[in-house]
Amino acid sequence: MPNAEEIIATGKTRPEHYRGWDYLRLAEDCKDLPRGTLIADRRIIYGYPHIGRLLALQPGLREQFTQPFWVEEKVDGYNVRIARLNGLTLAFTRGGYVCPYTTDRLPDLLDLSVFDHEPELVICAEVAGPDNPYLESSPAFVTRDVQLFVFDCLRLDRPDFLPPPQTYALAERHRLPTVQHYGRHAPEDNAALLALLRRLDTEQREGVVFKEEAPQPRRAKYVTGSANLQDIEATATDLLDLPPEYFTGRILRLALFLKELGLEQGETIQRRLGSAFLDGLLRAMRQYESEQRCYTTFRCRLRSRDNALALLTHLDQVTGHKVQIVQRDLREENDGYWMLEFDRSYPALNGLLSHLRHGGLIFD
Amino acid sequence: MPNAEEIIATGKTRPEHYRGWDYLRLAEDCKDLPRGTLIADRRIIYGYPHIGRLLALQPGLREQFTQPFWVEEKVDGYNVRIARLNGLTLAFTRGGYVCPYTTDRLPDLLDLSVFDHEPELVICAEVAGPDNPYLESSPAFVTRDVQLFVFDCLRLDRPDFLPPPQTYALAERHRLPTVQHYGRHAPEDNAALLALLRRLDTEQREGVVFKEEAPQPRRAKYVTGSANLQDIEATATDLLDLPPEYFTGRILRLALFLKELGLEQGETIQRRLGSAFLDGLLRAMRQYESEQRCYTTFRCRLRSRDNALALLTHLDQVTGHKVQIVQRDLREENDGYWMLEFDRSYPALNGLLSHLRHGGLIFD
Repeated sequence: MPNAEEIIATGKTRPEHYRGWDYLRLAEDCKDLPRGTLIADRRIIYGYPHIGRLLALQPGLREQFTQPFWVEEKVDGYNVRIARLNGLTLAFTRGGYVCPYTTDRLPDLLDLSVFDHEPELVICAEVAGPDNPYLESSPAFVTRDVQLFVFDCLRLDRPDFLPPPQTYALAERHRLPTVQHYGRHAPEDNAALLALLRRLDTEQREGVVFKEEAPQPRRAKYVTGSANLQDIEATATDLLDLPPEYFTGRILRLALFLKELGLEQGETIQRRLGSAFLDGLLRAMRQYESEQRCYTTFRCRLRSRDNALALLTHLDQVTGHKVQIVQRDLREENDGYWMLEFDRSYPALNGLLSHLRHGGLIFD
Repeated sequence: MPNAEEIIATGKTRPEHYRGWDYLRLAEDCKDLPRGTLIADRRIIYGYPHIGRLLALQPGLREQFTQPFWVEEKVDGYNVRIARLNGLTLAFTRGGYVCPYTTDRLPDLLDLSVFDHEPELVICAEVAGPDNPYLESSPAFVTRDVQLFVFDCLRLDRPDFLPPPQTYALAERHRLPTVQHYGRHAPEDNAALLALLRRLDTEQREGVVFKEEAPQPRRAKYVTGSANLQDIEATATDLLDLPPEYFTGRILRLALFLKELGLEQGETIQRRLGSAFLDGLLRAMRQYESEQRCYTTFRCRLRSRDNALALLTHLDQVTGHKVQIVQRDLREENDGYWMLEFDRSYPALNGLLSHLRHGGLIFD
């Protein structure tokens, strides 16, 4: 893997700063180097790599894995890497930005004394819950605020993950919250894995990640039909703003999941797919009718007012110039936390509904 | 409008031929000139123009129309223009190709003596039915083979349509089959138009076209929720081969239709949208499992074997190099007609299912 000078020489790094603290962020994938790789204080935190997706479990596991693998839950949240650099413990997003929200909430999410014992550690985790500032969906088992679930460990300056058993042991030693672990399985364990996935689907959980324990470990992910339905439900109002492949891909994956698990029959699933699209769109149209705009209100709690403002700036930066992020409220609560509420608009849907309200034609 | 020399000077015309007969076809829209405009024997047949779509009926009609308009049924078929050139009566597709199939079947579809009386006439019509070679959907009211429905008249060398009453009179005079006519309405006739659209939706019909009778007539189309569902049902196996906006656009239009007609509630529609996607995809997956490929078999009858072969060549030309058109059967029936059967493959879906069967990963 390239060193800091070589990463900078790619010309793809961008200078960023967070509250007076400067770093470089790799803005796009560059050969083997994932987007989000970052350099700070001359240390490298490698980006979290893309994990390939299985869409047909049985041939996929046999083809991809030649030895047993560890199975872990995949949680529906956002990916962060957490490290201590020059005394500061920071959380970075998948894209390599400091996340002002997660960084602010770190003391609530895990015991940071782990970094006193493991100063070179980079914790990879999913943050999920109804009060997160990024995603409209969250797992049912996080009922309020957010929680953090560790699933991998890196080291500063190293792109390779700790083997799963070492990650599990480290997490236990330092009482870190982790994703659910489903043990070690062989590629032939079809019946057990299908039973696990059927249970996760019933419980509306997202899916699993398979991780080999090998010098060059192979990995793959597989998501449930429910996860695809929940994604569509959560983002139907984004129908015109997300790439349309986002939706067609999830419909296809749902069909493949139903086929794989022998769940093809059933009016319930058909009705749920239809309502996943229609309920959100009709709700957005009613909202537009009464307020002349479509938006979703997000809310999240932070320890510091400055981080709340830094989060709004960060959201403006990463959502693109068309999406409007509008602060609705920022108030200190009795417990000393700041409650931030903001609206996120759907520019393409708002644009279309405005055009239609004025009687416009569409040429397609 | 430009004359023949000016059209050729655009550089966008392509030489084409059909059974020894040569013509020029405008391969893309060029300023006001629609794609499919063609020049043959120094006469111009103007392309059929794009008609704007209303997605919100009530503000749309009031904004687009300042005077009454004629309302006609929009039929779910393919668009042809029919003209007699140098003694030969030919049908041209929307793209400006001679359609070997429709040209072959013209004597069955309308009384061609109309061109003895009206030699400058260009008939614009929809051809629809279960045995058409292009579309997997067809209106329920055409139960076998295909039928033709006239909806506009042009003249050679002229881009302007006859006003609707003149088209209706001409069709009656020459006993031409037409689309259903729903009379003359004012933009304020909301209740009557909504009742009409609700009926068409219940009868699984595609929708309507609104046509002003004016020197520069305005036009607009509006389709039913059923039409969107039928399109998705008919093309779910094309999920990866059609542009994904094809699907997301129809979901959005369905939601707008339900809102407009006050049909938001209802499990039936949700189930139908879900099954529109899932039934076709699951059928394709089962087909792939048993035959290792996904395809649809089309069948159509022609008068001449040469036209059947010309149709296969034409389909190869217009469907792109990835879609496979494979002749399955071509046999003479007792009635002297030739029955052509061919398979149309879904290259992207076949490619994905093959990749998955071999255990491949997807990176998305």
